[in-house]
Amino acid sequence: MMIEKIVRMALQEDIGRQDITTFNLVPADQQARGVLVAKAAGIIAGTEICRTVFRCLDAEAIYQPFVSDGQAVQPGDRIAEVSGKTTALLSGERVALNLLQRLSGIATRTKTMTDKIQDCHASIVDTRKTTPGLRELEKYAVRVGGGRNHRFGLYDGVMIKDNHIVAGAGILNAVKTLRQRVPITTKIEVEVESLEQLSQALEAGADIIMLDNMDTATMRQAVEMVAGRALLEASGGITEDRLVEVAQTGVDFISVGALTHSTQSLDISFDLLEVY
Amino acid sequence: MMIEKIVRMALQEDIGRQDITTFNLVPADQQARGVLVAKAAGIIAGTEICRTVFRCLDAEAIYQPFVSDGQAVQPGDRIAEVSGKTTALLSGERVALNLLQRLSGIATRTKTMTDKIQDCHASIVDTRKTTPGLRELEKYAVRVGGGRNHRFGLYDGVMIKDNHIVAGAGILNAVKTLRQRVPITTKIEVEVESLEQLSQALEAGADIIMLDNMDTATMRQAVEMVAGRALLEASGGITEDRLVEVAQTGVDFISVGALTHSTQSLDISFDLLEVY
Amino acid sequence: MMIEKIVRMALQEDIGRQDITTFNLVPADQQARGVLVAKAAGIIAGTEICRTVFRCLDAEAIYQPFVSDGQAVQPGDRIAEVSGKTTALLSGERVALNLLQRLSGIATRTKTMTDKIQDCHASIVDTRKTTPGLRELEKYAVRVGGGRNHRFGLYDGVMIKDNHIVAGAGILNAVKTLRQRVPITTKIEVEVESLEQLSQALEAGADIIMLDNMDTATMRQAVEMVAGRALLEASGGITEDRLVEVAQTGVDFISVGALTHSTQSLDISFDLLEVY
Amino acid sequence: MMIEKIVRMALQEDIGRQDITTFNLVPADQQARGVLVAKAAGIIAGTEICRTVFRCLDAEAIYQPFVSDGQAVQPGDRIAEVSGKTTALLSGERVALNLLQRLSGIATRTKTMTDKIQDCHASIVDTRKTTPGLRELEKYAVRVGGGRNHRFGLYDGVMIKDNHIVAGAGILNAVKTLRQRVPITTKIEVEVESLEQLSQALEAGADIIMLDNMDTATMRQAVEMVAGRALLEASGGITEDRLVEVAQTGVDFISVGALTHSTQSLDISFDLLEVY
Amino acid sequence: MMIEKIVRMALQEDIGRQDITTFNLVPADQQARGVLVAKAAGIIAGTEICRTVFRCLDAEAIYQPFVSDGQAVQPGDRIAEVSGKTTALLSGERVALNLLQRLSGIATRTKTMTDKIQDCHASIVDTRKTTPGLRELEKYAVRVGGGRNHRFGLYDGVMIKDNHIVAGAGILNAVKTLRQRVPITTKIEVEVESLEQLSQALEAGADIIMLDNMDTATMRQAVEMVAGRALLEASGGITEDRLVEVAQTGVDFISVGALTHSTQSLDISFDLLEVY
Amino acid sequence: MMIEKIVRMALQEDIGRQDITTFNLVPADQQARGVLVAKAAGIIAGTEICRTVFRCLDAEAIYQPFVSDGQAVQPGDRIAEVSGKTTALLSGERVALNLLQRLSGIATRTKTMTDKIQDCHASIVDTRKTTPGLRELEKYAVRVGGGRNHRFGLYDGVMIKDNHIVAGAGILNAVKTLRQRVPITTKIEVEVESLEQLSQALEAGADIIMLDNMDTATMRQAVEMVAGRALLEASGGITEDRLVEVAQTGVDFISVGALTHSTQSLDISFDLLEVY
Repeated sequence: MMIEKIVRMALQEDIGRQDITTFNLVPADQQARGVLVAKAAGIIAGTEICRTVFRCLDAEAIYQPFVSDGQAVQPGDRIAEVSGKTTALLSGERVALNLLQRLSGIATRTKTMTDKIQDCHASIVDTRKTTPGLRELEKYAVRVGGGRNHRFGLYDGVMIKDNHIVAGAGILNAVKTLRQRVPITTKIEVEVESLEQLSQALEAGADIIMLDNMDTATMRQAVEMVAGRALLEASGGITEDRLVEVAQTGVDFISVGALTHSTQSLDISFDLLEVY
Repeated sequence: MMIEKIVRMALQEDIGRQDITTFNLVPADQQARGVLVAKAAGIIAGTEICRTVFRCLDAEAIYQPFVSDGQAVQPGDRIAEVSGKTTALLSGERVALNLLQRLSGIATRTKTMTDKIQDCHASIVDTRKTTPGLRELEKYAVRVGGGRNHRFGLYDGVMIKDNHIVAGAGILNAVKTLRQRVPITTKIEVEVESLEQLSQALEAGADIIMLDNMDTATMRQAVEMVAGRALLEASGGITEDRLVEVAQTGVDFISVGALTHSTQSLDISFDLLEVY
Repeated sequence: MMIEKIVRMALQEDIGRQDITTFNLVPADQQARGVLVAKAAGIIAGTEICRTVFRCLDAEAIYQPFVSDGQAVQPGDRIAEVSGKTTALLSGERVALNLLQRLSGIATRTKTMTDKIQDCHASIVDTRKTTPGLRELEKYAVRVGGGRNHRFGLYDGVMIKDNHIVAGAGILNAVKTLRQRVPITTKIEVEVESLEQLSQALEAGADIIMLDNMDTATMRQAVEMVAGRALLEASGGITEDRLVEVAQTGVDFISVGALTHSTQSLDISFDLLEVY
Repeated sequence: MMIEKIVRMALQEDIGRQDITTFNLVPADQQARGVLVAKAAGIIAGTEICRTVFRCLDAEAIYQPFVSDGQAVQPGDRIAEVSGKTTALLSGERVALNLLQRLSGIATRTKTMTDKIQDCHASIVDTRKTTPGLRELEKYAVRVGGGRNHRFGLYDGVMIKDNHIVAGAGILNAVKTLRQRVPITTKIEVEVESLEQLSQALEAGADIIMLDNMDTATMRQAVEMVAGRALLEASGGITEDRLVEVAQTGVDFISVGALTHSTQSLDISFDLLEVY
Repeated sequence: MMIEKIVRMALQEDIGRQDITTFNLVPADQQARGVLVAKAAGIIAGTEICRTVFRCLDAEAIYQPFVSDGQAVQPGDRIAEVSGKTTALLSGERVALNLLQRLSGIATRTKTMTDKIQDCHASIVDTRKTTPGLRELEKYAVRVGGGRNHRFGLYDGVMIKDNHIVAGAGILNAVKTLRQRVPITTKIEVEVESLEQLSQALEAGADIIMLDNMDTATMRQAVEMVAGRALLEASGGITEDRLVEVAQTGVDFISVGALTHSTQSLDISFDLLEVY
Repeated sequence: MMIEKIVRMALQEDIGRQDITTFNLVPADQQARGVLVAKAAGIIAGTEICRTVFRCLDAEAIYQPFVSDGQAVQPGDRIAEVSGKTTALLSGERVALNLLQRLSGIATRTKTMTDKIQDCHASIVDTRKTTPGLRELEKYAVRVGGGRNHRFGLYDGVMIKDNHIVAGAGILNAVKTLRQRVPITTKIEVEVESLEQLSQALEAGADIIMLDNMDTATMRQAVEMVAGRALLEASGGITEDRLVEVAQTGVDFISVGALTHSTQSLDISFDLLEVY
């Protein structure tokens, strides 16, 4: 239901009251066939979303993907073919591409990063630095690229940050308080900036501890100190260069905001092949 | 109204039913003061949106921007200060940053490009390759960066593309038909791929003609042929390297999809200064 | 999508939680056949909207129009036949008629006016004096009647009115400012009340100039002065009596608010023919 | 809440993403004062709605009506004055006028009719032939003009029509069934086309009986037959000419669809007096 | 439309962005068959709502009820069978049960009470003490159980309560005023606490009079006094013990808030029989 | 935001287009003062919701609670006082009471149960057997009564039930699969019906294990087997009689569906004290 809601919103934003070019030029009952074609190499994410786009505009459109989400494409590869009303194809093209290109861009980048550390125990995880309105889809693209999801929002996970510590009690009390008040199904994560804080978080019984902006050597110490009693997340300014080094410290998760806040669309085009 | 709607949607997406960390740790009546600080150099866009974010969560929050949209910042510059309920500041921080960083990233890039061609007649214009749901804001950021807007959607501008020609009549008929059917306030643009098509578009009385993927020499010929009888838009694969060369052909507009489809967030942080 | 949204809103307003008469009297699976019949002469607009009404209440209803939008009917003519659940027909009847009668009334009046000036170059155009919520449909009915549309709202066209001049700069500056700030696809219209203002608007490069409440002789002078350098719209108190005279001045458009603000419904009835 | 919802919808329809003329020409903090002025004689309805329009766009706008709903105005009379942001006044003007003119038109016509029969027992009542989306407001305007409201929709009143009789049981059974199934607070009305049907409706215990398209003599007989045992509503083709004659038969209600389906807007203008 | 809206809201509340257990464990195209089974004796209400639940999640699900609304079940009885996507069955199960159990609980209790007074003239009626958001469904369940509905809200019935009398005029004036202002299809009810007030309400011409918290003897006197000139509703603290006694006074209606404000769900389970 | 949304929905449901009794009887500017008074003993939950109700109808209403959520009241105790427009008080009264009574009923029952086991380690937890649309509020009332919350929906917690096992892989694979696919902040719970399944769940690394319908002796064995390696939840048919016995087994959580599916409203009334 979420996907359909996003697609309808996007179509509403783009088409508004009417696609005045297409509506006035193309016969309402004309049919057409078109293809989505990769113009660059990458990992595809979002093929089912394109189906939803065209189906919203023509409930009888036939959409046939040639590539599943997660598969790699090369320039020139056909990603999917769609047949239906010409008006639906022309009015929906831009929205389909805007979503497919963005998600494939995210999946491609995530895949590059997960491949780099595939021999380590660590997983790449995303953050809440996503595009407002598209979090669900962008986090899906991260999974398609082999990454894992951190919490989806402030409602389904607990993260005690430095700002919370500034605003309130110490780590120990904070964890204790939250244990009583949040759903029993939710893990509690604490952000720490030093080994001293790490030790407090451990004592408090945190389920996950985020190592914020630590250098690699300190992270290694942290992994040793914790010895499996909590999950560890490395976070903050982890560039692709430093990725392997960080993964080799033995942390469980490496979170990367740039996966979603600074994206490079994968180039894809839509070509109308014939009308009938 | 549009901005408030986007902000509320973004807050709903991130906070959901409740910020379970902040709600359970921070006293409801505690006040705090925090600042938005630039971590990189760039052009700011979206300061008023941050005000809306915090005001949605605390109607009495006081928001004081130090920088207006369009101004340049250096790392360390304070962009704005906000005072209000600690819960509002902590629960709204991520949404404010997600929007401000993205829009400032777009404005920064647009400014770089418009600066490059400031001695030419041509304007940089955006496209419909925007993030679904954020078009209004992203096109605003383009204006902040000195660019101009192309149509906002399929409803407020006419663009006859090759796919429309595949699906229907020739250029001449298409323009004639649309002149009768679209609002009298709307210009008609035709996409052409050759000088021959250009000549048809001119004859048809197009108001704007888009030169699609033409090399610089052909563009120069096009400008000569048209001689002011229509506005000309250069489009398709125009990298920053080629920008000046294209602008010097004398076209009126250069449209750049990457302004919005492949963005680099401007790095900005939020720091809680004190609680009281 | 717009039409379905309006229809659902109208059904919601009329049916609310339930049509308590029909729901409690008519078996849920009873089928019926009914017809829409013209009770007066006029031009039909909105037949597809009636289809949407009945389909919203019975997805399998069969709707067969005998008359297309734009065709003339005489009293007694059958406009369409619909078969489906009796409950859908009875609960939807009033909404279908309310929309069809209003739109046909608008189309009929527009047709009368366009016929009067069919030998002139001028087109009849509508205004923003439409019924709140129904603008899209009412402007469609104007097109059905042979008229053209002015802008759909404040977002898709520019009109510099006397109130804007009161509130700001002169005509020249206003046009110049807007050229930089509005989408490149949007024409700029200026309202003028004298030939002096007309001359300023021309100099400023306005695309369309509205001659506000001018007498016919002045309009004739205006047409001469402009000599094709801008489009001209006659507006303000143009009664049917004066229509031909105004058209003969050579203006391009004559806008008529009464097309939509003071409508006469076309009388149409719905008769249930049989149930089964 | 209903009024605010309609006003917001109307503003959304007209302003859309932005009033691009006003937004780009008028300084955001400029204030102005303007007046609503009657251009024709009539009864005003909707002054509070205009307040809502301007307040939606400027929460601090000051709106001062000089005329209350139900009062008569002459050409030139000031109806209300509003002070606030110039942008709010200019962007809201059209919506305010569209609503105020329509409702005042309805109130004016209703008043004319109720005045004609003021010496009779009968009341003028409205129908469901209202503008989709505006029923609440239009029925309010009828009350302002001295008329009474029939049911607001299919949910809050029962009306057994000929189509229901075609589709189901006889009058007697229909009334009996509905008595058991509809809320105990709802009256039951039956539409009859002959004195024979009237007699059945009476026997069935109908609370109200609608005399459909009867001539005046038959209506007189109906009033005698019923002798106060049910309320009587005259309906169908009752022109202003015939109004008094019908009222004098002694019926309780005379319903007039044209009150809302064929309206004549009352001419009203908005003038900006000064900016500061 | 109302039912579908409630069901979608309930599914949205429960599933949110995704059923993360089912989505990740069960193949998207796996089909299953399951049954709804009564675990306690009672009256079923809401079988069609369950159909809507599963159809919202799988448009091709097949739902076969074995019991109609209003029928009695014994522990172990199969209420309905559903076949469709396993994911739809598992993700929809809880919402279907939450609605079906609550409505069946209400129908069961209503039936118990109506059975007790089946030899009397009086009907059991509900109140506005319903669950926010579910009034339409809960009042339906009351009808299923043999009860009648009081007004659905403040909009479709008039009830002059003691608080209205405190706030305004006396009973006589209140009734007179409302007769002119509310729709002609709406009955007027007055709440009275003494025989003196009853006499005023009668004189004022109230259609229904509510006897608020009267003892049985006084009610009997009230019935005599009124002698059929108005309908009488007994209300206030009427326990099951006192029900027959009250009904025997001859009142027309006995309203019972506990029908909906203090419900006992009927125990029902959903079992997956097979997957394929 | 959630609370305001529920309150607006509830007011819309009850008031609809207008409170026709109050609107027509009470002067729009009349002010009044009223109190909420307990009619039975219990624990209050929802005082802030009542504030929201009255504020939605009169933004300047003053609401003064005398009792905080979680406090006990006796019959006759004043819970809160509200001053504001009489129309707001009368039109909002029923919605305020419907919510306050229900939530206080839930808190009261939860408190009774948590008190019974206050000497044990176990907590009372709620389930997803809540009223559609009110889950957020009902789970809040459980917390007010001293209970803890289980997951809020299918999106923020994982529960592998027997139906999932029927539909898919064994416990071991299910847990392993979900570990990779769900957010890293989410615990994984497995429902088991035997000690053998318990042993599999333990081996699979489940965070929480639900003991479904086990007798007390088996639960005791389960607690021993697990020895702190996972959290244990007792579930299924746990009546108040058996509560202490179950708590004494050493389980961590006891979930009770009846807390929310079969509620007894706490009796509370609203009295208008004076108008002015």
